[in-house]
Amino acid sequence: MANEESYAEAKRRSDEAWDGIEKEPGAYTLLSGDRPTGRLHLGHYFGTVKERVRLQDMGVNTNILIADYQVITDRDTTEHIQDNAYNMVLDYLAVGIDPERSMIFTHSAVPALNQLMLPFLSLVSESELHRNPTVKAEQEASGHALTGLLLTYPVHQACDILFCKAQLVPVGRDQLPHIEQTRNIARRFNERYGRVFPMPVGLLSETPLLPGLDGRKMSKSYGNAIALSMTAEETAKLIKKSKTDSDRHITFDPENRPGVSALITTAATMTGRDPYEIADEIGDGGSGQLKKYVTQVVDDFMAPIRERRAEYAKDMGLVKEIIHEGNRKANAIANETLDEVREAMGMTY
Amino acid sequence: MANEESYAEAKRRSDEAWDGIEKEPGAYTLLSGDRPTGRLHLGHYFGTVKERVRLQDMGVNTNILIADYQVITDRDTTEHIQDNAYNMVLDYLAVGIDPERSMIFTHSAVPALNQLMLPFLSLVSESELHRNPTVKAEQEASGHALTGLLLTYPVHQACDILFCKAQLVPVGRDQLPHIEQTRNIARRFNERYGRVFPMPVGLLSETPLLPGLDGRKMSKSYGNAIALSMTAEETAKLIKKSKTDSDRHITFDPENRPGVSALITTAATMTGRDPYEIADEIGDGGSGQLKKYVTQVVDDFMAPIRERRAEYAKDMGLVKEIIHEGNRKANAIANETLDEVREAMGMTY
Repeated sequence: MANEESYAEAKRRSDEAWDGIEKEPGAYTLLSGDRPTGRLHLGHYFGTVKERVRLQDMGVNTNILIADYQVITDRDTTEHIQDNAYNMVLDYLAVGIDPERSMIFTHSAVPALNQLMLPFLSLVSESELHRNPTVKAEQEASGHALTGLLLTYPVHQACDILFCKAQLVPVGRDQLPHIEQTRNIARRFNERYGRVFPMPVGLLSETPLLPGLDGRKMSKSYGNAIALSMTAEETAKLIKKSKTDSDRHITFDPENRPGVSALITTAATMTGRDPYEIADEIGDGGSGQLKKYVTQVVDDFMAPIRERRAEYAKDMGLVKEIIHEGNRKANAIANETLDEVREAMGMTY
Repeated sequence: MANEESYAEAKRRSDEAWDGIEKEPGAYTLLSGDRPTGRLHLGHYFGTVKERVRLQDMGVNTNILIADYQVITDRDTTEHIQDNAYNMVLDYLAVGIDPERSMIFTHSAVPALNQLMLPFLSLVSESELHRNPTVKAEQEASGHALTGLLLTYPVHQACDILFCKAQLVPVGRDQLPHIEQTRNIARRFNERYGRVFPMPVGLLSETPLLPGLDGRKMSKSYGNAIALSMTAEETAKLIKKSKTDSDRHITFDPENRPGVSALITTAATMTGRDPYEIADEIGDGGSGQLKKYVTQVVDDFMAPIRERRAEYAKDMGLVKEIIHEGNRKANAIANETLDEVREAMGMTY
């Protein structure tokens, strides 16, 4: 009940923010980002990246974090991290992130952002850290002992959001507790030391989740993900080997027919069509015809993305330059914010 | 039993380090520091600062941290922190810390040091953080809810020690668990990503604790502390009003006569004399004569310290310059270490 109430409150704030964005997008700063653990896939794209591009194009001041330190919250290795970061930039560019308008930067390159961990950790209690449901879920999913970095991850996320004074953080409902933690930190800091930070809002959107090809959450580790970097052949092969069922007549029924329905949802998402209409159209054509159709619409959707990606991939110097420039900007912003924090706390010598 | 064994091991390592220092002091780097919550007193001086000066004078590369972020591990305010930091430098200078040979710096001014929190937090588990006995004791003493900053304090201390690759950390026996945590972090980092850090050693010394004037731990909050910044009049007044007992005959008996014995210990510490001999000498002179003697030897001891302190206090510009120069050096060292850390972790873009 308390959760429902706080969701209603969060939704109200999100709606209010959307109204504000419509009126004056340039007055808003947004923070969003991804862990560089692999390639971005269509689940990422339809889940958050597409919305990010839309907000950027509306004129919102957009900051995109390649969260390299998040990789080690539940992993013992940083293998391939450089390659993953470069490819993440290619994925961003391919789908329309414009480095002229969006700042793309990496965690590990911005010391003044990371320093905020210290004052912010003093503003949360140990029991609050333990109460965060998302941290618990992530720890269980990782099958790894809870590290100090995962335990304090909501505080680090507060640093990411507040260093650039972002008021907007696109989130799913499950991430609202993180935003609540960030709001607590901002409020307590301002109350204790004087106003430095805005109160950020979790920006909820109506985007339905695009499932993986087997109906589960789309994830590289499940082998059910169509990465933005895949060739047409790789995509076709992945769709071909996706598991359907023995009922030849195609219907849209996510609960009882996860494989078939995931394929239909994929096609519906690519085309904007109604999933029931697609199912009716295929009808007795069976999963063979369904897969053919899905392959086609995925290809149509991905062709321009692939083309742009290939074009950018020819110039890795540009990719590096984009990260360097983003990090340069992020450091300038972080240094300025840290100066304000030191000033507010009286730590000027 | 396990604790006794690990103490023996820590003692062996400390003895080994002392041997090494005697042979080649210049090969060693030391990290030590204080929380700027008030003025340094004789308890600090005889407990750690005197040893620090001795090691500096022997030629050990000495780094002294004014740990301003530690102030907020268990406090809600940073009131007077700038004044405390400046006065701490005056206290250091007065007792012989030489800024030409020792680097004096503040936590909040060294972002690359603080950034180490992120990778280091990934190397400790939540249960290790909870197991630290010193953190528990400090939390109980503070009467404050356990903050995230106090919980993760041993990790932050690892950042302080490892950013400058210190091999030596002067500690009391109760702080050995912190050093163990730092050693674990250094070992795990080196194993996982390649060798960057030395394995620091807790440098134990034979220094007996100087109690406050009432026999309890010397602490400003108990009103039993002789601060290095006190005038002769203030010191005399404090000693005069210290609580003794009704037995006119003076004996040295810390357990049953804490007030009298603390005064004797103070005189013994100042003069290097044997406390029983002092007690015998005063004998039936009573607490009045004892207090007169203690006032005299404290004065003799503190006169040159007071003189130097007053001299330096005339030039607060110099004090600021010392901190600025220390922070400049600390940043150069921290940036270099962070570069090595990024390189080892593959976070170079």
